[in-house]
Amino acid sequence: MFSNYLARPCRYFPAQCTVVKFLHTSPVKCSSVELTQIRYSNLKRGNYTSLADKHVSFFESLLSKTRVLTDKSDVESYNVDWLKTMRGASKVVLKPKSTEEVSEILKYCNDNVLAVCPQGGNTGLVGGSVPVFDEIVISTVLMNEIISINKTSGVLVCQAGCVLENLEAEVTERGLVMPLDLGAKGSCHIGGNISTNAGGIRLLRYGSLHGSVLGVEAVKADGTVVDCLSTLKKDNTGYHLKHLFLGSEGTLGIVTKVAIQCPPKPQAVNVAFLALDSFEKVLATYRLARSCLGEVLSSFEFMDRDSLMVAVTGLKLKSPVPEDTPFSLLIETSGGNSDHDEAKLSLFLEQATNKGFINDGTLATEPSRIKMLWDLREGITQSLTMDGYVYKYDISLPMEHFYDIVSIMKERLKGTSFIRCCGYGHVETSLISSNLLSTSGQPSTVAVSALSMASDSRRRLWFTSPSLLKL
Amino acid sequence: MFSNYLARPCRYFPAQCTVVKFLHTSPVKCSSVELTQIRYSNLKRGNYTSLADKHVSFFESLLSKTRVLTDKSDVESYNVDWLKTMRGASKVVLKPKSTEEVSEILKYCNDNVLAVCPQGGNTGLVGGSVPVFDEIVISTVLMNEIISINKTSGVLVCQAGCVLENLEAEVTERGLVMPLDLGAKGSCHIGGNISTNAGGIRLLRYGSLHGSVLGVEAVKADGTVVDCLSTLKKDNTGYHLKHLFLGSEGTLGIVTKVAIQCPPKPQAVNVAFLALDSFEKVLATYRLARSCLGEVLSSFEFMDRDSLMVAVTGLKLKSPVPEDTPFSLLIETSGGNSDHDEAKLSLFLEQATNKGFINDGTLATEPSRIKMLWDLREGITQSLTMDGYVYKYDISLPMEHFYDIVSIMKERLKGTSFIRCCGYGHVETSLISSNLLSTSGQPSTVAVSALSMASDSRRRLWFTSPSLLKL
Repeated sequence: MFSNYLARPCRYFPAQCTVVKFLHTSPVKCSSVELTQIRYSNLKRGNYTSLADKHVSFFESLLSKTRVLTDKSDVESYNVDWLKTMRGASKVVLKPKSTEEVSEILKYCNDNVLAVCPQGGNTGLVGGSVPVFDEIVISTVLMNEIISINKTSGVLVCQAGCVLENLEAEVTERGLVMPLDLGAKGSCHIGGNISTNAGGIRLLRYGSLHGSVLGVEAVKADGTVVDCLSTLKKDNTGYHLKHLFLGSEGTLGIVTKVAIQCPPKPQAVNVAFLALDSFEKVLATYRLARSCLGEVLSSFEFMDRDSLMVAVTGLKLKSPVPEDTPFSLLIETSGGNSDHDEAKLSLFLEQATNKGFINDGTLATEPSRIKMLWDLREGITQSLTMDGYVYKYDISLPMEHFYDIVSIMKERLKGTSFIRCCGYGHVETSLISSNLLSTSGQPSTVAVSALSMASDSRRRLWFTSPSLLKL
Repeated sequence: MFSNYLARPCRYFPAQCTVVKFLHTSPVKCSSVELTQIRYSNLKRGNYTSLADKHVSFFESLLSKTRVLTDKSDVESYNVDWLKTMRGASKVVLKPKSTEEVSEILKYCNDNVLAVCPQGGNTGLVGGSVPVFDEIVISTVLMNEIISINKTSGVLVCQAGCVLENLEAEVTERGLVMPLDLGAKGSCHIGGNISTNAGGIRLLRYGSLHGSVLGVEAVKADGTVVDCLSTLKKDNTGYHLKHLFLGSEGTLGIVTKVAIQCPPKPQAVNVAFLALDSFEKVLATYRLARSCLGEVLSSFEFMDRDSLMVAVTGLKLKSPVPEDTPFSLLIETSGGNSDHDEAKLSLFLEQATNKGFINDGTLATEPSRIKMLWDLREGITQSLTMDGYVYKYDISLPMEHFYDIVSIMKERLKGTSFIRCCGYGHVETSLISSNLLSTSGQPSTVAVSALSMASDSRRRLWFTSPSLLKL
């Protein structure tokens, strides 16, 4: 049934780590990115039909010429991923507007053995959103209609191509908030968020998409429309198939519509930025925060010294904590009453100080100060890439072993060309972004080997992206 | 692969409504409950092997004699459901202690074409937990080991046969709370909660089990163990298969282990009991509560006049609101600081009064008063059955149509033997328990017809139990 899908490229790569050279300091033209099929020459194209004029004619008759891109310069940006490390060789981009059009396209492609590659905002960092060979790109960019927002139930129903930030703006006007938020919000599509089961900085507060997504409509490879678009918070009819589409990265079908439960918008936000001298104290502080801040705790972000200093240097900001602080935490509360939240946060800080968990820190209640502290945390990824090539791995580990991956990698990389190894991430989901900085931009067996060795040292490693599964 | 499973009996019944004659006023012996296969004579037994001595010998060699019940009096209670409206004819009950034993049992049954019926706490109200014919009962009652409780991450890992109330007691000692709570907590097994995707009164606060359940281990019909027992809050490896076991009622396999995220235990609880004069005001009050109470709102329970008065009469309590109040609400807050929560609740009540949403009400902060108010809400089900036979339907409807089912049924039942039609439930999940009271205990085509007609009046009805799907 799924014969017209190439397995997502990310599942193939021999070295699945992502190598990033920061784009601002060294802008890369799309056309100069090496073709994925050349870079990974062991990849074999499936036995799919090559695109012919008659196929394009069919698509044009279905969508009109304006929604079928075939000009090389138009197609180019759909072939290259956001990090400009992967490049496909697709010759056509289709822009359906409706579920019915997606269905017609997939049915036709299935009947004619044409490979396809669904694409949302193309903000993925593991090469999953772009073709490997000449797959037809089906972009959800024009499927951006908000179908309904129910102010009573807080349920948003929309098409899959809606940009997360636009949805946030719409629900905010109605006193609601999107249950997820992530750095790529200005470009990423909600359909892509669902297909990759995106987490982000609100997961601590509002839980995973498996809890927030009430319904999904998707189209299977043969054109069949799967209607699991319930808008009920509890719907026990039949098997709960919609969950299979969360995180399946388009391999089971293209998500076309989504129903999401949006919580009420918090009225007050406070942020504390804290200095700690050991990872054990990070965990102890997390336990204390869960207990003292309970229902208003909304973020608990962790960064080690190197991560923080890279951001401080890159963004030319003053460090809110002493520069030799081994570990820093950004803790955010959000709730219905600013005074209440501040009182809870003060009590928590008092206890954390008295117990010796934290050495230093700063508290921000003004939006500009809060933004500055968040900029530091969110600027790490970008700043990391300013002085070399970065090998990135985002990994979930059991909380108590959260930081081991960095310590183990540091050990393994002694005496190599790697000049920095650091980690930061969400403590709640035990998701650490571990980064190796090298002067070389080629896939490095040393980097891969370092992670493999780290992996060996635990019974099991849980990777947050399937692209890293087979390392 | 699933050939040794009889489809759950609840999927067959021509009249899927549950008829309840309250047990306390008219105790029913298990042996006097009519056999399901006689009551619903259109049901046909599948072509399964009948139990023979050699099968029992095998089970005894596997489990020892003490964990293989064959004595009629021992087996009896496993054949009859909690409401004593269904009775199977099983001749043997098996009590495995481990996943390996469940696997061995299922493999043997599959190889020998023996039908099985998995059973947890046997607290289900739709006949799904008892055999229809002579299926072998596999009880999880001895699979009650708590494997781990991680105080840092709040993750509980346990066997499927743990009783919910026992788990609550264990996690409470560690400053945590189970993310679900329901009336049957003293008997129901966590494996059954998962297999039926139980909701309950904490769903508003902590979301559905799809968000809270981090991992599931289950055994398929052929004995294969499916290990999805992740303990990570985010685990994007592979397809998210564990969700298929939530709400699939044992048809895909027997859940043997569970990993659940337990939130921190709230320190303070407050309850308001309010009187309203229209259903529109119920919804307006819900919107206001979501906005004013935000993160501390933990329950929003609704009941109409008849439901409340039945509980007041049945429990011999004084009504906290005037007896002619058309609609009542029980609103609970729970949070980290009692003063903060009371302040938020007071502000909410002031606004709701000023806007004319609520007419009257009472506020409780003392545990004994809180319990009394909850007793009224939780006592409805029991009290309803004291003066006749009750036909019960639990249905999720879009929030704005939440109460329509009762109005439509009242209209349809005019001039029949039905003496009461009332509704109550969780507003957050739009889950209404609609109840018809009759003097007759036989399955009533009038009752079924009333619901069917109500169903016709909407494009679609969502039933919370698959047993009601085919009505």
